[in-house]
Amino acid sequence: MTERIIKVGIVGGTGYTGVELLRLLVQHPRCELRAITSRKEAGMPVADMFPNLRGRIDLRFSEPAAAGLDKCDVVFFATPNGVAMQEARVLVDAGVKVIDLAADFRIRDVAVWEQYYKMKHACPELVAEAVYALPEINRAEISKARVIANPGCYPTAVQLGFLPLIEAGCVDAAHLIADAKSGVSGAGRKAETHILHAEASDNFKAYGVGGHRHQPEIVQGLTRVAKGPVGLVFVPHLTPMIRGIHATLYARLTQSIDLQALYEKRYANEAFVDVLPAGSHPETRSVRGANICRIAVHQPQGGDTVVVLSVIDNLVKGAAGQAVQNMNILFGLAEDTGLTQVALLP
Amino acid sequence: MTERIIKVGIVGGTGYTGVELLRLLVQHPRCELRAITSRKEAGMPVADMFPNLRGRIDLRFSEPAAAGLDKCDVVFFATPNGVAMQEARVLVDAGVKVIDLAADFRIRDVAVWEQYYKMKHACPELVAEAVYALPEINRAEISKARVIANPGCYPTAVQLGFLPLIEAGCVDAAHLIADAKSGVSGAGRKAETHILHAEASDNFKAYGVGGHRHQPEIVQGLTRVAKGPVGLVFVPHLTPMIRGIHATLYARLTQSIDLQALYEKRYANEAFVDVLPAGSHPETRSVRGANICRIAVHQPQGGDTVVVLSVIDNLVKGAAGQAVQNMNILFGLAEDTGLTQVALLP
Amino acid sequence: MTERIIKVGIVGGTGYTGVELLRLLVQHPRCELRAITSRKEAGMPVADMFPNLRGRIDLRFSEPAAAGLDKCDVVFFATPNGVAMQEARVLVDAGVKVIDLAADFRIRDVAVWEQYYKMKHACPELVAEAVYALPEINRAEISKARVIANPGCYPTAVQLGFLPLIEAGCVDAAHLIADAKSGVSGAGRKAETHILHAEASDNFKAYGVGGHRHQPEIVQGLTRVAKGPVGLVFVPHLTPMIRGIHATLYARLTQSIDLQALYEKRYANEAFVDVLPAGSHPETRSVRGANICRIAVHQPQGGDTVVVLSVIDNLVKGAAGQAVQNMNILFGLAEDTGLTQVALLP
Amino acid sequence: MTERIIKVGIVGGTGYTGVELLRLLVQHPRCELRAITSRKEAGMPVADMFPNLRGRIDLRFSEPAAAGLDKCDVVFFATPNGVAMQEARVLVDAGVKVIDLAADFRIRDVAVWEQYYKMKHACPELVAEAVYALPEINRAEISKARVIANPGCYPTAVQLGFLPLIEAGCVDAAHLIADAKSGVSGAGRKAETHILHAEASDNFKAYGVGGHRHQPEIVQGLTRVAKGPVGLVFVPHLTPMIRGIHATLYARLTQSIDLQALYEKRYANEAFVDVLPAGSHPETRSVRGANICRIAVHQPQGGDTVVVLSVIDNLVKGAAGQAVQNMNILFGLAEDTGLTQVALLP
Repeated sequence: MTERIIKVGIVGGTGYTGVELLRLLVQHPRCELRAITSRKEAGMPVADMFPNLRGRIDLRFSEPAAAGLDKCDVVFFATPNGVAMQEARVLVDAGVKVIDLAADFRIRDVAVWEQYYKMKHACPELVAEAVYALPEINRAEISKARVIANPGCYPTAVQLGFLPLIEAGCVDAAHLIADAKSGVSGAGRKAETHILHAEASDNFKAYGVGGHRHQPEIVQGLTRVAKGPVGLVFVPHLTPMIRGIHATLYARLTQSIDLQALYEKRYANEAFVDVLPAGSHPETRSVRGANICRIAVHQPQGGDTVVVLSVIDNLVKGAAGQAVQNMNILFGLAEDTGLTQVALLP
Repeated sequence: MTERIIKVGIVGGTGYTGVELLRLLVQHPRCELRAITSRKEAGMPVADMFPNLRGRIDLRFSEPAAAGLDKCDVVFFATPNGVAMQEARVLVDAGVKVIDLAADFRIRDVAVWEQYYKMKHACPELVAEAVYALPEINRAEISKARVIANPGCYPTAVQLGFLPLIEAGCVDAAHLIADAKSGVSGAGRKAETHILHAEASDNFKAYGVGGHRHQPEIVQGLTRVAKGPVGLVFVPHLTPMIRGIHATLYARLTQSIDLQALYEKRYANEAFVDVLPAGSHPETRSVRGANICRIAVHQPQGGDTVVVLSVIDNLVKGAAGQAVQNMNILFGLAEDTGLTQVALLP
Repeated sequence: MTERIIKVGIVGGTGYTGVELLRLLVQHPRCELRAITSRKEAGMPVADMFPNLRGRIDLRFSEPAAAGLDKCDVVFFATPNGVAMQEARVLVDAGVKVIDLAADFRIRDVAVWEQYYKMKHACPELVAEAVYALPEINRAEISKARVIANPGCYPTAVQLGFLPLIEAGCVDAAHLIADAKSGVSGAGRKAETHILHAEASDNFKAYGVGGHRHQPEIVQGLTRVAKGPVGLVFVPHLTPMIRGIHATLYARLTQSIDLQALYEKRYANEAFVDVLPAGSHPETRSVRGANICRIAVHQPQGGDTVVVLSVIDNLVKGAAGQAVQNMNILFGLAEDTGLTQVALLP
Repeated sequence: MTERIIKVGIVGGTGYTGVELLRLLVQHPRCELRAITSRKEAGMPVADMFPNLRGRIDLRFSEPAAAGLDKCDVVFFATPNGVAMQEARVLVDAGVKVIDLAADFRIRDVAVWEQYYKMKHACPELVAEAVYALPEINRAEISKARVIANPGCYPTAVQLGFLPLIEAGCVDAAHLIADAKSGVSGAGRKAETHILHAEASDNFKAYGVGGHRHQPEIVQGLTRVAKGPVGLVFVPHLTPMIRGIHATLYARLTQSIDLQALYEKRYANEAFVDVLPAGSHPETRSVRGANICRIAVHQPQGGDTVVVLSVIDNLVKGAAGQAVQNMNILFGLAEDTGLTQVALLP
């Protein structure tokens, strides 16, 4: 691998995944940030919107057309759903790698996607080509991709938590339960009443119990590695914290197995998955700002239900960090390049 | 019913259930607070410790011996586990009603209690007599009791959530799952590192997955109404909020049933259980400071798993409010006397 | 005083002062709520928007025109600035008392008002008639008013804190400093990015240092009781909590005086102002949900600077509670009728 | 400068400044961590106490005697007050540089120190030698020190905020006011009731108004650069956030001056002080986890009072980060070595 510098563009850098990408990329030793686009904020210095970046980034938000994205090596889409599918084709044709942090290329069944995302897909043929990029499952495939579908935050925590069980075929995969809790940044940087501090602080609630967009994404991912049909009840909750996802996973064991050994072996060579000692309870703050998933596995009272606790920072391993990890794979860098931040605790 | 004033004593009023009892009792139209004991703080005006009570209560903490508790009509124990069992006998013999907000009289099987609470029980014969007092199940029994075991916070939210399903016999009661989340006040007003603001804020974690004291209490309660064996996986979590419990409950349906109708009918006459319209997601803040449990029932994707969402304020319906409700029953008052506070929102 | 029931209307009940008014009024023994208007939400049951009110209020939001406000005894405006000035005239002419919780009638100098609120005043003649209603200063005047300008939240905390000093003429009133901190509900229930949980939580900042609308309101109020010109530097801050204002006030003493005695004497007969013992530090949570201002006065190192600490709940004594207090005065009720809630602690 | 690796020891690594030092040092390219001592936790892997460090540090806490601290190049004391003064002498004599993050060497007047810290000083002669190390004031002196007194958190924010004014002699230095707000981690990782989440969350209060230990430290620091006597009223407040200090500073101008230019010029060459554009309001989150102080200066309504807003992360620029900055100076490294983390926002 040469010491080539990767030229990076970001489309839509005004949300939380955008600022988190910026935080990681300005500390990445092999990247040069060429452009950050925002139609609405074109002309504004990025550091005026995100003062944590003062002194670290001189770029201004630019008009997409004038950004020269086709001269980049890779373009990240940190946009709302439905944007990347409009713009990826041109970039791919120009030889630019595309990493979409939104959902446009995550669901292979376009009809399902259109049902859950309530819009017509603009680019089904790239869906077929795109790689759903959870490195712990398919990094070889990722390394050759042109279009990367970066997994959702809940799907990352839930899939990494269930994966060893499903691969081992030791649970009733048709009746999985994922009780997931997310910090409020997971809802994005949108001016909506229900995520105001005065509404969401000192409060806890479930939402989307009837059907959440991440449910089919998780089922699709687990189905690929399962030995039979996968069924999932997925209940997300809003938690009064800024960052962090805690997924509590339940499955019925169909055979006796050393769960601790199963997990430790599965993730022994994974830099970004940390299996805690038996009896542990991972905390979301232990991954705050860091690109890592920490997991503990329990079998309460020695019964037939396995309980998995899986935590990530939704903006890092659940979004921007995983996107950089995928970029590193795409460009043949060590997978942890620029991703060695230690979680902020307390 | 005469307009008699109830003479009330509180043992151990320096914790959160204590101050919450005080908040409710100073607003109760039929109570006269006679004594609040605290060995450690004897002599200190109560309002010096709890400034929200300034101008509303003139009492000082007093030595238990000098408190004249045996002249009260009812004594609440807002003490750590293991205190009430030492002192209840004398009061009961003096004709004083005892309401224990701790766990001393909750578990009928004394051996199980001693295993979970790690001490020898000092008064097993009162355990046999005591009434586990969840009014929505057994208010007739409560009205005649001499010793009231006030239910735990998690057990209140979980039992009220599962009750209609178990009574109807429509789920696999041997494989219940309760994924419960509690605000930090549930851990009590104790100087412990893990519940410091700098540790517990902006953080989320499970705890006690291997076995929590409320698990046998819930199983005991549900077993009484079940038509077969009850099995429960109970996973509590610490949530960065002050008050509130959100229990997310999972059970496998064994027959088709109109869940919404089942819940609405079961609680139609209960003042302190509110069944929300179909499709709802109760928030903990909607019960903050109020003696009420709000419940929603879901059947995601029409599958065979029922999901129940049940919220309470752990210090009110989960402790002090329910204790006052039980007192009202004991003394023949309208059950909502002094319990009509509206939840504080936002 | 007869036991007459007061017929109450609320214009604009969908914000935080609205829901707080509702919380207080449904517990008020002498009020009957006749209408709550909201053009946007007309037809929606109030309890659908504010689930803490489920079971306690049956009203729906109604169209202003159809609400029959002119049949009410009193109408509260819990609206954005600029609404009450459009609608008060008609109500006043119909003999309805008007209590505006917004700022339309607070500033007597209409030119100043127009400068700070950036709109033309629609009803200057009612400004001249309206009574700025801080009961601790002018309850006699309030009792005879037709239009009540309910004070702002910061102005309530700051004026009550400075009042004894200014009345006594013992400080340099031309150089007052008010360093005030507010919970996020003070910004209202508006979908704005900067008050999102993910922005405002675990964060602290000043705002409006160049000039805040409450600065002229405070200066106007203090000038009325001052013996000379009043100058004020007012610096508000956004604090990551839901409710509460903490004003830290600084003034230079011009004479030696027993500050503790001064404050205790001034507020000896005020039910809703609590002067703490010397050396105290009031906490905002000690007034959470309660209609009270708690104050402590300090003279650090015996120097010539007096420091006053003044706390209120911005939604209660800083808005809805004070509005109800003013209503009680208007209708000759005991001033604390329906306002005896104890603060929620913890 | 050679590429020599600095051998580092930490005494007392179980508190918040300890874990923060560890976070920074494991990412520092020129340090090798040799020992972390804790009498109480000797033998425990550091990463068991601080799970954010799992996979990044293999050390265990060790007994001080067995730690080989005298073989280190530098030893940090992240201990309670009163420890470093007992142990520094031996290390200094062994040629080891000592950096004390506590207060033992901060106050040159030992009598004042003993009054405020309520203990006898064990090592007054090292107080005389020690350098109070605020790099923006005296980095030349720091580079030659043997004992570094790392400034307190409040004193860092307050001194950096006042410094340009005091140096310029343009304010009445005898009547300074510092209204400071701190996150709860500033109180340390101690099991105390008043900093529990259930006490400190959703709450705001002042404390120590009668006299705080940081008051004489700030006065001492500002006196060195002042042209006359310095007087300070210092009012600290506890804010419901984990990290961050916001100091709001007030001073009376004695002459007309271009404040913005004054500040920009003073800090033009400082990597870790960022003067914001005129009219700005710095947020504590903009420095969360980063070694930087951001400052804005205001002159409200063009009056004679200057208002300075100064924010730091109390654990970084207010403690561990500044300690590493001082280490870099001591060892001739570029001052920002290992200190280029970008603040975590949101």
